[in-house]
Amino acid sequence: MKRAVTPGTFDPITFGHLDVITRAAQLMDEVIVAVAASAGKKPIFTLEERTVLARQAVEHLPNVRVEPFEGLLVDFARSREAQVLVKGLRAITDFEYEFQMAALNYQLANELETVFIMSPPQYMYLSSSIVRELASFGSPVDMFVPPHVAKALRDKFPD
Amino acid sequence: MKRAVTPGTFDPITFGHLDVITRAAQLMDEVIVAVAASAGKKPIFTLEERTVLARQAVEHLPNVRVEPFEGLLVDFARSREAQVLVKGLRAITDFEYEFQMAALNYQLANELETVFIMSPPQYMYLSSSIVRELASFGSPVDMFVPPHVAKALRDKFPD
Amino acid sequence: MKRAVTPGTFDPITFGHLDVITRAAQLMDEVIVAVAASAGKKPIFTLEERTVLARQAVEHLPNVRVEPFEGLLVDFARSREAQVLVKGLRAITDFEYEFQMAALNYQLANELETVFIMSPPQYMYLSSSIVRELASFGSPVDMFVPPHVAKALRDKFPD
Amino acid sequence: MKRAVTPGTFDPITFGHLDVITRAAQLMDEVIVAVAASAGKKPIFTLEERTVLARQAVEHLPNVRVEPFEGLLVDFARSREAQVLVKGLRAITDFEYEFQMAALNYQLANELETVFIMSPPQYMYLSSSIVRELASFGSPVDMFVPPHVAKALRDKFPD
Amino acid sequence: MKRAVTPGTFDPITFGHLDVITRAAQLMDEVIVAVAASAGKKPIFTLEERTVLARQAVEHLPNVRVEPFEGLLVDFARSREAQVLVKGLRAITDFEYEFQMAALNYQLANELETVFIMSPPQYMYLSSSIVRELASFGSPVDMFVPPHVAKALRDKFPD
Amino acid sequence: MKRAVTPGTFDPITFGHLDVITRAAQLMDEVIVAVAASAGKKPIFTLEERTVLARQAVEHLPNVRVEPFEGLLVDFARSREAQVLVKGLRAITDFEYEFQMAALNYQLANELETVFIMSPPQYMYLSSSIVRELASFGSPVDMFVPPHVAKALRDKFPD
Repeated sequence: MKRAVTPGTFDPITFGHLDVITRAAQLMDEVIVAVAASAGKKPIFTLEERTVLARQAVEHLPNVRVEPFEGLLVDFARSREAQVLVKGLRAITDFEYEFQMAALNYQLANELETVFIMSPPQYMYLSSSIVRELASFGSPVDMFVPPHVAKALRDKFPD
Repeated sequence: MKRAVTPGTFDPITFGHLDVITRAAQLMDEVIVAVAASAGKKPIFTLEERTVLARQAVEHLPNVRVEPFEGLLVDFARSREAQVLVKGLRAITDFEYEFQMAALNYQLANELETVFIMSPPQYMYLSSSIVRELASFGSPVDMFVPPHVAKALRDKFPD
Repeated sequence: MKRAVTPGTFDPITFGHLDVITRAAQLMDEVIVAVAASAGKKPIFTLEERTVLARQAVEHLPNVRVEPFEGLLVDFARSREAQVLVKGLRAITDFEYEFQMAALNYQLANELETVFIMSPPQYMYLSSSIVRELASFGSPVDMFVPPHVAKALRDKFPD
Repeated sequence: MKRAVTPGTFDPITFGHLDVITRAAQLMDEVIVAVAASAGKKPIFTLEERTVLARQAVEHLPNVRVEPFEGLLVDFARSREAQVLVKGLRAITDFEYEFQMAALNYQLANELETVFIMSPPQYMYLSSSIVRELASFGSPVDMFVPPHVAKALRDKFPD
Repeated sequence: MKRAVTPGTFDPITFGHLDVITRAAQLMDEVIVAVAASAGKKPIFTLEERTVLARQAVEHLPNVRVEPFEGLLVDFARSREAQVLVKGLRAITDFEYEFQMAALNYQLANELETVFIMSPPQYMYLSSSIVRELASFGSPVDMFVPPHVAKALRDKFPD
Repeated sequence: MKRAVTPGTFDPITFGHLDVITRAAQLMDEVIVAVAASAGKKPIFTLEERTVLARQAVEHLPNVRVEPFEGLLVDFARSREAQVLVKGLRAITDFEYEFQMAALNYQLANELETVFIMSPPQYMYLSSSIVRELASFGSPVDMFVPPHVAKALRDKFPD
């Protein structure tokens, strides 16, 4: 049985993340969406809020569950007995960073394999930070995130 | 059950390819190494030679088999009822090309998922063309390919 | 009045090229699609065939005309009194090459401005060479090129 | 008539920006230099100071005007009935970011075209942040910015 | 006699830095490791701590010395009568930034040559920021930094 | 004493190559310009012609000599007891290829150090292939190559 971890800050979860998670769920027996504390990034949603928003977004996927984590990703993956990390790749900048992380994680935990799924072209430009910026200016974000996330963003940035 | 195809020209198969194939074999239930005819690239080994060299290189991996193919990769993958393409990524140039191929294949056969495994740092510089060039100058290639491939290269480029 | 040249080999013209040409035609008063001889690339269609296929593809655009050319692009642009080159950008590899060409052309003809239009995500993977490869395997290409080009490709690659 | 917007933070305006603006002014009938509030970047000059410095730098260009803006660029461009965004490209990192922005803006406002002008080689290394850093160390910046901007930087960073 | 400067923030010095410094010391007659104040980066070690940690790490290299500096790198290099800057390159993002810096420094001080040494594959993923992150989670870092630096990190991040 | 090799095909030598060679000659005690046979690239000038053109171009540099070579670069460098390879870097594509070559050469001959010098902005677009293409169309190339090379190109491509 193959258990995978798909990590991220998910501040908030977007259709781009959901695309990667859905495809991971088709490839693997079990997928854990690991929501990183990422205190250094000063997320606009708390770790609990981000976990709840992600959980609601994947509740239709029976082999996917969502868990918050702090500390090193490889330690979390080990504690869950996952064999695989699944990451989405959007662009060259992603690629370089992910390459370094994959090499580092391989050194830290060589039993853990990292696989990459490329985002489809229509999600290439999509990131949580763009969604946050649009929402902060009061621009609609319904084409980028599920309805419950759009509502959470409107609550976070009232006019 | 997950059946994957790992395509390539394999002219000849290197330790870099074997690394990707071995890791794919750990992730998937069954792996088909698909040796492309690639007539346009004018390979130095025939399609049959490349297939035999690859087959010998993976014979210790019980869930891996090697098959030659001509025509479109997505047609081959469909005919074998594979759900996944597994590709190795070494560098930015690879990344761009593979991104385009993944997007194209998604358009041609959206039931087929492409996943990428990054080559470990020590294989980043390794390619069949570098191995061929070294062999053509009589330089030893034992650190880059299995012994039976090194022998085939010496036979191809006698002093 | 702004007259632009959009150069290429167009072997054959694709929906990706048409997207760039259409957008150039909205930005500029007049657009000349310049079909390069590109003898070194050994095109599968003759210069005349490529010119005719391109001409048919743009006949609905009143301010666009198609012309074959040999020699240096900057000499052609000068002879047509164009002030602008319009190029499509798909990927990093394009970017680097185009950057070098823009710097060279600026040195050769600094009155000629080069502007770039990025291809929309859905055309990022599309190139004439991919279309030729698909057609050579008998795969349908109707989603990538206009009907008259698809027919020309079927004639070029009969089963 | 073609009206273009060239957006930026302009903290402060450099010869690299002026090169792009000047070339845009030759291509388009009217150019609006849009100075973004960019509160998140914590500029060293206020929005008003940046607007004034930019305005003085372009006063010799009759078809260019400078305006500050807050909020989404596409909303500003629409309110000014611009059909085109003109951006300068210096490097791969720019390219990736700009590609994502162009794709996003196309989704948000598909009547707005984004065109790119590559910076000439001599301005490739030039950025407002490098100019700010040089000025903060008391290094002369006269070769990178107009005299009135150099003076404003000296006032901002007295010895 | 060739005197080189190898600049950095060294927060803290890693085996990747040491690899570059060691190779620079073989190429040049004298190497000055220049530890930048880098106040804007908010280093976790003070300038003095970083200088001492670097000094201990290179004490076995007779033609290498370590000095802190503030202000512009080219001014420091001039004051030490160095003819060469030696930088390590790990990745594309490095490359772009370093290219811009080399072009800028060439403009500011064209008697100063910048040369680059590529990091070996096993250090490609290694950076001070990754080391700091690992240490902050209590993860061992002995494979990435010398023992005295590992100890300093443990003191900085007690459990 | 530091002896360096600067390898290339030099088909023909350009001002970009000369810039790298000149700067290498300032950094190193002795520089050998190694002209590769590169039979696979089908050069337009013979190995002897390329060697003579390069030799004339560097005759004013007392510590530089030009030699043709066949076979592996590392074998040539070893036979000349060189400790360093000096390469020019122009762009990302160069960077990737050179990174792979440096890693390969390090594996083949780890006593041989590779250092890179970035081309100044004004030579970034310059390559032998662009010069050949310009010359083949009868375009003047005097701003890109020394006079004796321009003459050799005119002789190679008479009108």
